[in-house]
Amino acid sequence: MKVAIIMGSDSDWPLLEPAVKQLADLGIKNEILVASAHRTPGKVHDFAAGARERGVKVIIAAAGAAAHLAGVVASFTTLPVIGVPINSTSLGGIDALLSVAQMPAGIPVATMAINGAKNAALFAAQVLALENPALAEKLTAHREEMAREVEMKAARLLEKIGK
Amino acid sequence: MKVAIIMGSDSDWPLLEPAVKQLADLGIKNEILVASAHRTPGKVHDFAAGARERGVKVIIAAAGAAAHLAGVVASFTTLPVIGVPINSTSLGGIDALLSVAQMPAGIPVATMAINGAKNAALFAAQVLALENPALAEKLTAHREEMAREVEMKAARLLEKIGK
Amino acid sequence: MKVAIIMGSDSDWPLLEPAVKQLADLGIKNEILVASAHRTPGKVHDFAAGARERGVKVIIAAAGAAAHLAGVVASFTTLPVIGVPINSTSLGGIDALLSVAQMPAGIPVATMAINGAKNAALFAAQVLALENPALAEKLTAHREEMAREVEMKAARLLEKIGK
Amino acid sequence: MKVAIIMGSDSDWPLLEPAVKQLADLGIKNEILVASAHRTPGKVHDFAAGARERGVKVIIAAAGAAAHLAGVVASFTTLPVIGVPINSTSLGGIDALLSVAQMPAGIPVATMAINGAKNAALFAAQVLALENPALAEKLTAHREEMAREVEMKAARLLEKIGK
Amino acid sequence: MKVAIIMGSDSDWPLLEPAVKQLADLGIKNEILVASAHRTPGKVHDFAAGARERGVKVIIAAAGAAAHLAGVVASFTTLPVIGVPINSTSLGGIDALLSVAQMPAGIPVATMAINGAKNAALFAAQVLALENPALAEKLTAHREEMAREVEMKAARLLEKIGK
Amino acid sequence: MKVAIIMGSDSDWPLLEPAVKQLADLGIKNEILVASAHRTPGKVHDFAAGARERGVKVIIAAAGAAAHLAGVVASFTTLPVIGVPINSTSLGGIDALLSVAQMPAGIPVATMAINGAKNAALFAAQVLALENPALAEKLTAHREEMAREVEMKAARLLEKIGK
Amino acid sequence: MKVAIIMGSDSDWPLLEPAVKQLADLGIKNEILVASAHRTPGKVHDFAAGARERGVKVIIAAAGAAAHLAGVVASFTTLPVIGVPINSTSLGGIDALLSVAQMPAGIPVATMAINGAKNAALFAAQVLALENPALAEKLTAHREEMAREVEMKAARLLEKIGK
Amino acid sequence: MKVAIIMGSDSDWPLLEPAVKQLADLGIKNEILVASAHRTPGKVHDFAAGARERGVKVIIAAAGAAAHLAGVVASFTTLPVIGVPINSTSLGGIDALLSVAQMPAGIPVATMAINGAKNAALFAAQVLALENPALAEKLTAHREEMAREVEMKAARLLEKIGK
Repeated sequence: MKVAIIMGSDSDWPLLEPAVKQLADLGIKNEILVASAHRTPGKVHDFAAGARERGVKVIIAAAGAAAHLAGVVASFTTLPVIGVPINSTSLGGIDALLSVAQMPAGIPVATMAINGAKNAALFAAQVLALENPALAEKLTAHREEMAREVEMKAARLLEKIGK
Repeated sequence: MKVAIIMGSDSDWPLLEPAVKQLADLGIKNEILVASAHRTPGKVHDFAAGARERGVKVIIAAAGAAAHLAGVVASFTTLPVIGVPINSTSLGGIDALLSVAQMPAGIPVATMAINGAKNAALFAAQVLALENPALAEKLTAHREEMAREVEMKAARLLEKIGK
Repeated sequence: MKVAIIMGSDSDWPLLEPAVKQLADLGIKNEILVASAHRTPGKVHDFAAGARERGVKVIIAAAGAAAHLAGVVASFTTLPVIGVPINSTSLGGIDALLSVAQMPAGIPVATMAINGAKNAALFAAQVLALENPALAEKLTAHREEMAREVEMKAARLLEKIGK
Repeated sequence: MKVAIIMGSDSDWPLLEPAVKQLADLGIKNEILVASAHRTPGKVHDFAAGARERGVKVIIAAAGAAAHLAGVVASFTTLPVIGVPINSTSLGGIDALLSVAQMPAGIPVATMAINGAKNAALFAAQVLALENPALAEKLTAHREEMAREVEMKAARLLEKIGK
Repeated sequence: MKVAIIMGSDSDWPLLEPAVKQLADLGIKNEILVASAHRTPGKVHDFAAGARERGVKVIIAAAGAAAHLAGVVASFTTLPVIGVPINSTSLGGIDALLSVAQMPAGIPVATMAINGAKNAALFAAQVLALENPALAEKLTAHREEMAREVEMKAARLLEKIGK
Repeated sequence: MKVAIIMGSDSDWPLLEPAVKQLADLGIKNEILVASAHRTPGKVHDFAAGARERGVKVIIAAAGAAAHLAGVVASFTTLPVIGVPINSTSLGGIDALLSVAQMPAGIPVATMAINGAKNAALFAAQVLALENPALAEKLTAHREEMAREVEMKAARLLEKIGK
Repeated sequence: MKVAIIMGSDSDWPLLEPAVKQLADLGIKNEILVASAHRTPGKVHDFAAGARERGVKVIIAAAGAAAHLAGVVASFTTLPVIGVPINSTSLGGIDALLSVAQMPAGIPVATMAINGAKNAALFAAQVLALENPALAEKLTAHREEMAREVEMKAARLLEKIGK
Repeated sequence: MKVAIIMGSDSDWPLLEPAVKQLADLGIKNEILVASAHRTPGKVHDFAAGARERGVKVIIAAAGAAAHLAGVVASFTTLPVIGVPINSTSLGGIDALLSVAQMPAGIPVATMAINGAKNAALFAAQVLALENPALAEKLTAHREEMAREVEMKAARLLEKIGK
């Protein structure tokens, strides 16, 4: 039960760290790779084509600009591939969003929000939880925890503003 | 092993039919619901909250315009939710794409391309195939079949244009 | 005669404070809630479904990104719902604007400008003023006050630049 | 209890007819004006400035392109003004949406979806229903009717596709 | 021979100062007004309707967001109106550009680039120069001066980088 | 007193015909040229550089796609240049609008709406009318005629729909 | 001296035919391949990696939607790769344009206009002409021919409209 | 074997310096010019029309806003012209991208990413390498070096985060 995270550049790491932390919090093993669809295509191919064999269940691929990484990874495997468009140019990430989401019929990529790495981790966990009741429970607990957090912050705000 | 498909309007059906057909071709059972996040929110809630219990593994939610359906469904379940933005306004579907993809941290929706219902079915199958080797083989075969189709069409084109 | 303000995150508060202040200046009571359409959907439902009974006349709902909050609130009540799209992602708020404004037929949301919380308060006041002549007079006075302010600033500028 | 509808051009009528019909169905009186913010500004001024006196409670203003009509109307009255951006150029209505929605602080316009005239009528009715319990009940009935319609269409579709 | 400059807010002044300076450099008299199409519509009307009589030849109108000012001014006069869209929201000025440029047939506004106030001054001068050979010569000289400046900066750069 | 119209392609003619007709209706002489900034740059240069000498007062330049024509013309003359962005690609004319409007400081182009050729003619007339009282009166009459037309159409519509 | 054309789908052929015809008109040999970056990635790899050896000098790669083809091809070769974004979705080709143009540093793709296949052929010819004076002359002649065509069409138009 | 770089403003230099450095690293001679398509059109013409004679093989043209420079250069030469859209306005460079990329049929410009000057240098080198095996080898080595760099950074990151 392992999730693989591949990012197009080491500079994407700060945006992906929350995803790795989220996976760890849920007790999910992960492997991390920095590889570029364009600069190290061979490495991307080997990573994707061999993922199932290495025990990977879900792949998270994050890239910016003309973000081809998730689509290229998806072309080499039938494992579920989650794409995270990264805001790394002057266009606010709309270039990456369209490059990741607008995949042609046949090769799906599950696109998250721009910079939405944490949700990629949660979605991967939701997939893994289908056959792992303990993880499913953790996800339910995480939802409840989030709700509590929203409510706590809300209470603190209302107190602060005297409502 | 069941996939649930929910669409915001019966007029979305022609765009979703390929998804249902694709699931059927892969031998995956499905349930279909027409329900609107805004016009029948109670029905959407009941559908989503009870999905896991009904044996649903993956949910596909398709909607256009301010496409809240996938996000609303995702807020009621920790099953994987796949969102399909539908092009149903004068903006070419960019409104639906942003409404589906730009989910806040905590509640992921796996967004497909605008009108990309077929890929939603394939992604659902990829998720289910993680614990179903026979389905995984079918997906591999489907990829090979697609490749053959591309090559056949290519051959036909080259013949037609005399290359 | 009460206006309810609901925001998707406590971090939206600085953008909503002017709305609350505006309501107070006009002598309109308000209630404030922080609740997320996706993280605390039950709370949003209870807030919206019970609003009329609690004496709420108008609801202001503010959220960013795939801003479903206003639409979700509107699906649970026939009170007038005013949506404020918040600029909270790398896309400058166009994602929130489209998610709030492009509502399907049947469930209207009165959309304000991106980050336009003050106008939400004024619009709510305009609605309430229909049956409240004193408030209507205050709004007329507010318009005159704004005009005077524009003119005062103009005079100061012209003086400063020696015109 | 009257709603005024103003449109920038007689060619907008087919898009506004559903709004007028919706108001009629709910038993709300209306007045209709065709007047252009740019070609007949005097008429727009007189219409807006005199609306309250004529017994108008809510104004619906629809226009396309650089759609200034709603904002101009709003500048002459403190009645609630609902803006309907019309798709009348090659840009799919995004020009009208931004021209209507992005109002500066002080003069609110309640913006509907592009071409969303029907929702303008419903929102006007929701405002009027605040002091009109009979109308409020009609709106609740309308919501239930919409829900039934969604379910009927859903049932018909499922039957048709043999589910 | 006078150019009138009207801006929607005194906060636009820093962006308009280069226009006033450019007019002064070319020896063109100007009048300046701060008035909002929405907050002080009467003042805008009086300004525009009386401009020809006051000896104004060209009007420059600058505003941001749903920038109606230029269009509203143009509706009250047949003097040439130059619109300057101001970048004053989170959308980079595209809202103002579309609100200024997409005018309906019949009421033209000569739109400049976003924040392009200097060009508004130059265009006004070009219009005035049609009947003023001395001004026409100054404009030709200004072009030559600009060309020299480009070349001087170029020379300095090439020197600096050792080419 | 002559207006020159230059268009990038003979296929733009149907969109420019209303401009020529409008000029004729106002009794303004015109010259017409088809010349491409990219395919016949020499011709464009000669046209623009010699325009003043030929008695041209205002130039209207219309082009689509990467619409450089108006900017190139403006670089060769200090006559007022009006740019008309043409919708001639799959992007609805936003490419042409930005290529025409976003001119750098120093070389202004007075941009009209996408496909807004008629307004280009009217703006040219407004410029010429500054020194031509008879033309100014015609423009005032044209405004009144437009207003009457709006009112006539309005009356016809109201009659048709029984209001 | 050979140009290779690769397209992502046989349905792109009508848009690419003008490119092939243009190459033929200039006497440039070509090879054509239909292969999808996602559906037949191996074929794309072999095509690109072996191109130099097969005597290919320039590659033209055309694709729509999340158009990864040109970027993927470019990652396997240091031959010049020209990308043609195809308008094949509801977004008018802006998705393809960004997916092709926004390449990261290191792997250039020479992007043409949306659907701009003919220019891809001409650009390829311009590259080849660097070492082929006869081809360079043909290109000069082609430019002159284009200019003549513009002038002929212009003359015909002016005649038709009686200028 | 020389590459010419032309930029619209000396302020673009910091974005173009990497291109010049890249050319130098590959041993390619270059000439640099600052000239504006609009402010110094004559200089641009002379630069472009005389480039082939001066031994220039490829031209890189960089400009922002309504970026006409590359298109204007391309209209005066049949040498390959590479366009670099510069992000120099409030629109994030989308104005420049469309102004450079959307060239009409007949006059190609090879468009790079927004601010993508380094890729312009590499693409120019790829063109020159067609007839220069030593340069081709350098480019292959550059690709390998890039790959090594990606891998080194990756290794360093993994070490840092303890994977």
